[in-house]
Parts: sequence; C-alpha cells; structure tokens
Amino acid sequence: MHLATSLLLTDLYQLNMIEAYLRYGETKTAVFEFFVRKLPSRRGFLVAAGLEQALDFLEGMRFTDEELGWLERSGRFGSRFLDDLAKLRFTGDVHAMPEGSVFFANEPILRVTAPLPEAQLAETRLINILHYQSLIASKAARMVLAAPGKLLVDFGLRRAHGAESGLLLARASYIAGFAGTATVLAEREFGIPAYGTMAHSFIEVFANESAAFEAFAQAHPENLVLLIDTYNTEEAARKVVALAPRLKAQGIRIRGVRLDSGDLAVLSKIVRRILDDGGLKDTVIFASGGLDEDDLAAFAREGAPIDGFGLGTSLAVSSDAPALDCAYKLQEYAGKPRRKLSPGKETWPGRKQVWRRYDSDGIMAGDFLSLEDDRQGGRPLLELVMKGGKRVKGRPPLAEARARTQREMERLPPGLRTLSPDYAYPVAISRSLAELAEEAGRRIEAAQKPL
Amino acid sequence: MHLATSLLLTDLYQLNMIEAYLRYGETKTAVFEFFVRKLPSRRGFLVAAGLEQALDFLEGMRFTDEELGWLERSGRFGSRFLDDLAKLRFTGDVHAMPEGSVFFANEPILRVTAPLPEAQLAETRLINILHYQSLIASKAARMVLAAPGKLLVDFGLRRAHGAESGLLLARASYIAGFAGTATVLAEREFGIPAYGTMAHSFIEVFANESAAFEAFAQAHPENLVLLIDTYNTEEAARKVVALAPRLKAQGIRIRGVRLDSGDLAVLSKIVRRILDDGGLKDTVIFASGGLDEDDLAAFAREGAPIDGFGLGTSLAVSSDAPALDCAYKLQEYAGKPRRKLSPGKETWPGRKQVWRRYDSDGIMAGDFLSLEDDRQGGRPLLELVMKGGKRVKGRPPLAEARARTQREMERLPPGLRTLSPDYAYPVAISRSLAELAEEAGRRIEAAQKPL
Repeated sequence: MHLATSLLLTDLYQLNMIEAYLRYGETKTAVFEFFVRKLPSRRGFLVAAGLEQALDFLEGMRFTDEELGWLERSGRFGSRFLDDLAKLRFTGDVHAMPEGSVFFANEPILRVTAPLPEAQLAETRLINILHYQSLIASKAARMVLAAPGKLLVDFGLRRAHGAESGLLLARASYIAGFAGTATVLAEREFGIPAYGTMAHSFIEVFANESAAFEAFAQAHPENLVLLIDTYNTEEAARKVVALAPRLKAQGIRIRGVRLDSGDLAVLSKIVRRILDDGGLKDTVIFASGGLDEDDLAAFAREGAPIDGFGLGTSLAVSSDAPALDCAYKLQEYAGKPRRKLSPGKETWPGRKQVWRRYDSDGIMAGDFLSLEDDRQGGRPLLELVMKGGKRVKGRPPLAEARARTQREMERLPPGLRTLSPDYAYPVAISRSLAELAEEAGRRIEAAQKPL
Repeated sequence: MHLATSLLLTDLYQLNMIEAYLRYGETKTAVFEFFVRKLPSRRGFLVAAGLEQALDFLEGMRFTDEELGWLERSGRFGSRFLDDLAKLRFTGDVHAMPEGSVFFANEPILRVTAPLPEAQLAETRLINILHYQSLIASKAARMVLAAPGKLLVDFGLRRAHGAESGLLLARASYIAGFAGTATVLAEREFGIPAYGTMAHSFIEVFANESAAFEAFAQAHPENLVLLIDTYNTEEAARKVVALAPRLKAQGIRIRGVRLDSGDLAVLSKIVRRILDDGGLKDTVIFASGGLDEDDLAAFAREGAPIDGFGLGTSLAVSSDAPALDCAYKLQEYAGKPRRKLSPGKETWPGRKQVWRRYDSDGIMAGDFLSLEDDRQGGRPLLELVMKGGKRVKGRPPLAEARARTQREMERLPPGLRTLSPDYAYPVAISRSLAELAEEAGRRIEAAQKPL
C-alpha cells in the first residue's frame, strides 16, 4: 500500500494563498518549523516519528494531470496559476530530528527551507503525517515504560481512524518498543513482526471449546496461543491442561493462552496456577481487552503473572490525548524572522536548533533552544535530511529509530519515567533567540502602525 | 483517491482462523452484526455513517497476485489455502441502516450473512470503516445541535489520524449537517463544498497586515474572508473597515473576517461593533481555533455574534470520545444462534431487526430490538443493501444521507437534544430475543460440560 499522495489532500486556503503568492512574486525562501506547542496533561515527553513518510511525501510532491484538470474545471483558479502548479516540485531543504528522538514542547522536530509556495503547499499533509505517528509513538512509549520486560503487540487496526492510521500505528508503536503488530500489511510494508492468535468467533463456530482448541492447534501448531475467555476462563484453562498431553504426543506445544475480559489481574493468577499445576509452566499468559498504560502499570503493581499484552483502541487513538497541539509555523521569510503575535500563540522566530545536555551518568539534563548558528553545549538534535528536494542519505532501517527510542528512554530523567510525571524537563531559550523574538515583535508592531 | 483496498490490511488471526475453517469445512453461512456496545459518556445517540465505503470494500474484496506471492513467501500458510484465498470473493448479503440514521447501543447498524471465511475476512476493515465515520458523524451532530443556524466547516485534515481519516471526516461531518470542508479532495471525491480563507503565514509574509489584506483581496475577490488575529484583532478589524471602500470601488466585497485566537465571545462582539460602525453590517464573522461543541454552546448562550465556525481537531479525532466501543460479532452459524458469555461482553444472538416508534408529534418514542422475523410496531431500520455480493440499488447521493440525519435529528426526544443528555432513550429487547439468548446460553454451557 502506498500512502495517499494526492496533493488535493490539502486545505483549500493553501491553493488560494499560493495563487496570491505567485501573483505578487512572493516566492522567496521561507522557513517553516513543525513543533508541539504544549504537551498533553500527564505527559512529560514525546517521541518523534513519521519523518520517512514526510520525506516520501516531499519527494513525490506533484499534481497529476487529472488533478490539474479537475482544479481547472472547478473554476476557482486562473490558467496561469494551474500552469505554475503543474511545474511545482519540492526543491527545498529539510532539517529534522531523526525518528525515535525524544522531544519536548516548542522544540522543532522538522524544519522546511524552501521557496514559499512549496513550503506552504506541503503544510497540511506534513502536519497530518508527523502529528499522527509522533502521537502514537509517544503513547506507545508510555505503555513500554509501564510494562517493563513485557511483550507488547499492536492490536489497534480495527479502531484506528481509517486505513492509513491503522497501518502507520504499527510502525510508530514498533519504533517506541513494541514487539510487533497484528496488522499483516505492516509486516509486508515495514518488516514489523506480525502476531496473531484467534477470535471468539472461532470458538463459537465449533460444538464446544475443547473441540475448537484442538482444531485450531492442529491447523496452526506454530506459536499456538489459545483464547480462553469465551465462556468461562477457569474452565477453559483446565481444558488447555487436559489437551496439552494429547497435543504434545503430536509434537504440538501450547505456547500461550489469551485472556480478553474479566478481572485480568485476578484471572491471570488463577490461570497461572492451573497451568503450572498442569505442568504447563512454559505456557505464557497474554492479555488484551481495552487496556491502556494505566492498566499495565496496575498489573505490574499487583504482580499479575501476564507475559504480554495486546493494545488496541487506547494505542490506536491515543485515548487520553487523541491529538497534539502542534503547528507548522513560518519562522523566517526572505531572510527576515517572522512571528505571530496572536494571544497565547506567540512563536519563537528564526531557524532553530535544539541542544541536549546529559549529566555524568548519561541522563538527560536539559535542552537549549537556540538560533541555528548559535552553538550551545551538548548535542544538536536537528540534522540535514533533505537537500534540494532529495534525501541526503538513504532510508535508514526502522530498527535504527527503534534503537534510538530505547536508548533515549534509558536516558530519561527518573521524573519522566512515570505515567504522571511531576517534573517538567528544562528547555531553556538562548539569549539570542529571546532577543530576536523581542526585536521581531517590535519590528512587526511598528510595521502595523501606519494605518 | 481510492481508499485502501489491500486485504492484507487485516489482523493476522483472521488468516489463521480462515485456514483452519477451510481445513475443517467450516464454510457454512455465518451471520455477523456490527453494533456499539455502550455509548460514550455524555452521548445520548449516535449517527451511522460509512456504509458506502463498507460496501465498496466488500464488492472489491480480493487478494492480488502480488499479495498472494508475499503470503506464500512469508511461509506461514499452505499452498492449498493460498489457492483458496486466490478464489475468495465476497458473495454474501448485507443488511444495514441507511447512512445518516440515528442509532443506539446494542442496535446493529450492519449485518453480514455470508460463508464463514468471507464474513470473517471482512471483519477488521469493516469495523475500521464503519467505526470511524460513525464516530465522526456522531461528534459532528453534537456540533450541529450546539450551533443551530450556524455555518459549520470541517477544518480537521491536518490533525486527523492519517490521510484516509482526513478525507472521510469531511464526508461524515457533511452527513451530520456541516456546510462543507476545507479539504479540497473531499470536494472532488464526494462533491462536498470546499471552503478556504487564509493562514497567518500569508499575513506574515507581507510588510504589514493591511498590505496582506489588500493583496489577498485582489488575488481572491470571491468569497473573501480575511484572517484578523495575527497581531491585534481590534486593530485588524479597523484595517478591514478602512480597506472596504477601496475594495468596493474595484467591485470587491469583504464577505467575512475570521478570528482564530483570544476570547472569541468578547472579541466577536467588539469586532461586530467595529464592522457595523464601519458600514460592514453584511460582513460575517467566522471563528476557529481549537473549538469543540461545548465552546459552540457557550457562544450561543453568550450571544456571541459569530456566524460560522471552522471545527478542526475536536471534530477530526472526536476529542471527548476518540473511539466507540463497537464490535462485529458472530450471531449465528450454520443456522444456530451463537453467543459469547465473556463477563461484561455478552451479546444478543440471532439475526436482528430494529423497530422505531414515534409519538403523535413525530418524535422518537422508543426502539425495539427483535429477531428479524419477529415483527414489532414501528418502522424497521435495517434494510437489504447487498445481495450475493452486489449492491441491490445504486449508490445513493450523499445528500440523501445528509437529509436523513437532519430529519432524524428533528425527531430526537428533547432530552437527547443537549450536549449532556439526562435521558436514556428506551431500547427494549423483544421477548423472543431474550428467550433465544437464554436458550443459546444454556445450550452453549451444556456443550462445554463434557470435559
């Protein structure tokens, strides 16, 4: 599946504005940055994801003849503009934090430097791509924190918001440390391991549960996980014990059981005992059913003997915070910093860099937001990833982003390693940036005066 | 843009189960129903949407050679199964509530009657399609209720979860009564009117705000709406008044202004006065900026003179309830009712119909959930829409669904016409259905006994 590439997947105002830009020759270099204004409540950090799809979009940015024909028939635009649109490609540069990076409010994770019409046309879909995967990687990271050492699998496709969301959520959660996904296409597209057990409908089709277990085991002896909550979980666990020797004689091992309803903390202990007493100490317990990271944390506190989890809805829609307050803002145009002064939405102008410092134990100690050329201590996080409309390197393997998240999460300050962080990670604004913001504000206000 | 059609966009367990079904000859007729188990809090009703895309999916259901080749190389499945998959098409029947119907918990909005493997394979994507559009139509309906007589426009694409979500949210909100969308592709795909104004970046590009307004007006004289909150809203409103006569001389009318930040209730009153005093009584005020239905209701209470609203994030992700607790459940197989007994997830077995009664004023008085052939009073809501894998009628115009929602919302009981309903609409269970559920439960429990 290729992601949607139509450039009509944009807001009408982008086209209206670009027509005006072209008419007035406003095609000079613009700098836009994508950042999150404010973290959702109970969130101490975010994880950047979606960059590869963003770069794919920019590399492929063009209107098809069919789309141009439709725009013409819509009667909204002049033919000269449509000729310009036909030629439009993305020729700019992109700086970005690599996927899997931990980031904070006001820190750009992507910067576009390009002729204004190109940078403007990219806005809607770039936000759409970066927002969703960063949202999900950030949510998934919380689940990983809450369930150390557990196998986490994305079960979210059915309740995800549409097809693309369903596919990309597998990718974003894998970056954050999930073991895999139930979504077959995600294995094909991204090489993410696909996991699958069985549904209640399978059990219900057969005359009784034991018959269903046996039938499934013989049809699917590999990685055999039996769903045991369709009728009565305890009884089903005993049926699994009864069935095991018969299957063993045929060389089939029951790898695990899955619980999907009821009080999972209690049931998992009962089931663990039944399995252990029945000689199935190696059979793991897998749980699912409307779980979120708070449930995972509760299971850990209660010592529930659950080895892995399927996370569906809460992951797919980032249930506690289904959107990030993000923006793609013009920071510079024609060499001059630009700035919005709307109350509560003031932005930091100019081309920026984020610098990260670590303490002597390698734990993150604070970030600096500065102008790009104003070097600060620490490691710069934004790097050049696209030059003149082309990627500067090949496509990094997904495992690289996944390893980065793991590494960065190990270096998170302890105050951020909980589900309800009591600690705001320090992001300082460099003096030169603060001065530029003030100066740009003054200049803009002055320019507004002559009414 | 065609919606994603890959049959690999499914859960791995579906393929595992289907292989087992085929192996054991379990290919008899299965009946699955899609319904919502429980309404989100503060919701008194839902609006069905997504049926046309669901039917498109079923009509096009097939594996490509490429997909089959990949499945073979994955090593998970036998060649006999892959041959069966290659031949698999959807040959079943579908009953459904027409799009735009108001529905309640436990009421099926779609029923699939088909050979078990086909009905099972359809599950994941069918839920994915029906869930999202119903979610958004239901959210949008709240916004329509909260802002009677106002022009509502979908601004949600950028924060929607992926491309498909961005496109379909325009469709679902239009069904619920929105006037249009900012998403260009939605006009092309569905004929939904596209609306567009201008962004802050446009203002910031020009030397000052007045110059930006004038440039935009001359480039886009039609439906001219000027964004006035980039620097100082009141001053910008005065600039609009100052500019109006000059534009009028050129035959250009300022249709409206848009506010996107600040205290919109207060600002809209100030701006209204400035516009009125400046002779721009016909210039409308349009507002946007992180609004949801509670904001709309507050504006109505406060008498804010705002004529239209752009709804973005809260609509696109259904912010207060980003998912519905929905299911696609096996209700009958091989002529016998089926039923899950998992605690808290018991389902009503059998093929069902929903009957709706109205009082003498035409207001909805209560629904009956019954077995299909157990006729009750009132109007049956589920109708045959697909027979033997083909639509029984053509594709109804979108306007039909939109008119249906409007009609049904006019007939909602007053207790449901608020954002925090204090009234649970009565959905009664027919005696025959209750008896069947009990009987099926007993039969299933009995079958489990012989361990």
